[in-house]
Amino acid sequence: MEKKEFIEQMGRALEAVRSKKPLIHHITNYVTVNDCANATLAIGASPIMADDIGEVEAITSISSALVLNIGTLNGRTIESMLVAGKKANEMNIPVVFDPVGAGASDLRNKTTQSILNEVKISVLRGNMSEIRFIAGLDAATKGVDASESDLEGGLKIGCRVAETISKNLGCVTAITGATDILSDGQHIILLGNGTKLLSRVTGTGCMCTSLVASFCGASKDHLIAAAGGILSMSIAGEIAAEKAGKIGNGSFHMAIIDAISKMDAKILIEKAKIHEA
Amino acid sequence: MEKKEFIEQMGRALEAVRSKKPLIHHITNYVTVNDCANATLAIGASPIMADDIGEVEAITSISSALVLNIGTLNGRTIESMLVAGKKANEMNIPVVFDPVGAGASDLRNKTTQSILNEVKISVLRGNMSEIRFIAGLDAATKGVDASESDLEGGLKIGCRVAETISKNLGCVTAITGATDILSDGQHIILLGNGTKLLSRVTGTGCMCTSLVASFCGASKDHLIAAAGGILSMSIAGEIAAEKAGKIGNGSFHMAIIDAISKMDAKILIEKAKIHEA
Amino acid sequence: MEKKEFIEQMGRALEAVRSKKPLIHHITNYVTVNDCANATLAIGASPIMADDIGEVEAITSISSALVLNIGTLNGRTIESMLVAGKKANEMNIPVVFDPVGAGASDLRNKTTQSILNEVKISVLRGNMSEIRFIAGLDAATKGVDASESDLEGGLKIGCRVAETISKNLGCVTAITGATDILSDGQHIILLGNGTKLLSRVTGTGCMCTSLVASFCGASKDHLIAAAGGILSMSIAGEIAAEKAGKIGNGSFHMAIIDAISKMDAKILIEKAKIHEA
Repeated sequence: MEKKEFIEQMGRALEAVRSKKPLIHHITNYVTVNDCANATLAIGASPIMADDIGEVEAITSISSALVLNIGTLNGRTIESMLVAGKKANEMNIPVVFDPVGAGASDLRNKTTQSILNEVKISVLRGNMSEIRFIAGLDAATKGVDASESDLEGGLKIGCRVAETISKNLGCVTAITGATDILSDGQHIILLGNGTKLLSRVTGTGCMCTSLVASFCGASKDHLIAAAGGILSMSIAGEIAAEKAGKIGNGSFHMAIIDAISKMDAKILIEKAKIHEA
Repeated sequence: MEKKEFIEQMGRALEAVRSKKPLIHHITNYVTVNDCANATLAIGASPIMADDIGEVEAITSISSALVLNIGTLNGRTIESMLVAGKKANEMNIPVVFDPVGAGASDLRNKTTQSILNEVKISVLRGNMSEIRFIAGLDAATKGVDASESDLEGGLKIGCRVAETISKNLGCVTAITGATDILSDGQHIILLGNGTKLLSRVTGTGCMCTSLVASFCGASKDHLIAAAGGILSMSIAGEIAAEKAGKIGNGSFHMAIIDAISKMDAKILIEKAKIHEA
Repeated sequence: MEKKEFIEQMGRALEAVRSKKPLIHHITNYVTVNDCANATLAIGASPIMADDIGEVEAITSISSALVLNIGTLNGRTIESMLVAGKKANEMNIPVVFDPVGAGASDLRNKTTQSILNEVKISVLRGNMSEIRFIAGLDAATKGVDASESDLEGGLKIGCRVAETISKNLGCVTAITGATDILSDGQHIILLGNGTKLLSRVTGTGCMCTSLVASFCGASKDHLIAAAGGILSMSIAGEIAAEKAGKIGNGSFHMAIIDAISKMDAKILIEKAKIHEA
């Protein structure tokens, strides 16, 4: 696909989010859930958070996409994620998986494996440490941020990893970081927007996942959806950094949500730094 | 009651919140809980969130009002809500119920029915879809927002529904939306403040419920309390929209809390758009 | 120790947080958890929230400090707190305990006692009502804020209480309020920064605890760490109040995070109001 055509398709995908207002079911962590809901609303979709096993199938059934985010997983919600994921698969509803902290504990590792084994994922989005863990590579996950040693492997390994996972799982894989690496198993796309400041506010990864799910809820091409969601986040970060980065983290945080709510196809197309690897 | 007298009573009710600082026990969802706590503080009351069955009776006992909000209900907290609600009834502490997403899943429906059957509610606050579901009307609940088809029925049906529920349950019913419909079974009050932007930030309904509970914790007249809480929210929305609506959702969100914290009887009385149906 | 030397050590402790970026494991409440994560990031540390018994030992093991905060405790997380606390003790990782609402319910009281009996705490941080309860004094805890009657006892009793608890538990005790009282059982330090506005935003106590833990994760002297964390919070409050206090609670809230993110040794040293009792 031509780069220009890809970017324009992203713009149309954003417009589809705003016109269709897809309902996005989140089973997610309690740390960043408010930001995820507000990011989902800001991009034009509609969030619903529900994690009880007694209702997750019903809620997934009325939704246009499902987010599984293991940031504060527990025995109760892990089971709900598996049940909701299977229901989504049954109904052909896209599932976006954010393996927060995969590699940091056996529980996260086993849960990540269970979800990948039992649920067909549409988009997998994580940082380099999390995705390296999933690829079975050595990963030095330190908490919920990518470790520096994992980042040193750099773009080449990242591209290989994203491509391989995507082929194996039949999904789009997105490794977000200074350069975001996306693959659907055939193409590899590199995205160059964003700012270091995004790592100084909690939940920017989770919000990014919510935006990807919002795009998936409105567009069938999940590579374009993943790119659209990630670029909406990273371009919003750039705009927010320019406006409020010097003021401090609190103002920057709110400016991110401001910028997501003002995002449109024009801004996305103008600012997107994208190329095929 | 005269309209002027009603509005002035609301103003005095707000002053009572600020002077009495009532403790408001919340059993609520984890999506918007921080905003609920901050809205409660901003209006002059004091929030406490506690949901373990081992302590909800103790916490309700020292509180001046109880909020039950089923936004992210689960097996554990549903039981706690029933126990806390009964304790509140025993001690004559007002209970404000927010049936978030009623109609969207069997679990929410059954829980809503259980709460209404087992707990005497002082104020029921929801959107048109949620309240239609409770009234036994067809409701096309789509997630946690009112569906457009449910809104089309419009004011007439809404007034009838609010009045009937209030009579049946012996409570005040508040259907919030573009026009808010309140009834205590005898009077029907319409409130015309607010802005569409309020639906673009998550938790404005939940915060509204917290404000209603804050008023109920300081005033015995629950129709006035409901009107005071709802108008504090919707007028704060208007002020915030004027100040920050164009900047974006994040700034608007913070401006809502700013405006609630600056709300006083004078602003409330000046801006209230209220009439009896 | 000389006052000047103490303040300069605090400055160096802050620089150590920013250079070491310690990982801070939180088992905390869902009301203020987002602010705790953002405060931890703003001061230069890295937060991870994990509360499932299946992973808390693993997460504590890779962390530099552990926060136990009982704000929304439940049967599941109480057990996790005890297990994580013991693991931290085994590995010599400092534990910072915030007994939110101790005195308000039997569950909070028993949990507080269990934690103090089974886990060796490095720093105990609470308000006057909570700490009085722990000292076995009459405490009139009303929810999660210190009651006025408990505050009337004033500085003298507070100093005695802090000193005694610190001796008995072998920890640093910090009673935060208009004047913060710190003791390690030998010294008593009084801190005079802050603003009343901090009590009008939820979570400023919890954030303070997260900052103390961030300092403990980077410095071995826990009296200096506690003072550094508390002063970072209260000086940030002063700066935020000056900048946004008149605008309202939402803007003030964000300005607190702004000010924490801009805190440095120079500001800390210049503004600290500190003296030995």
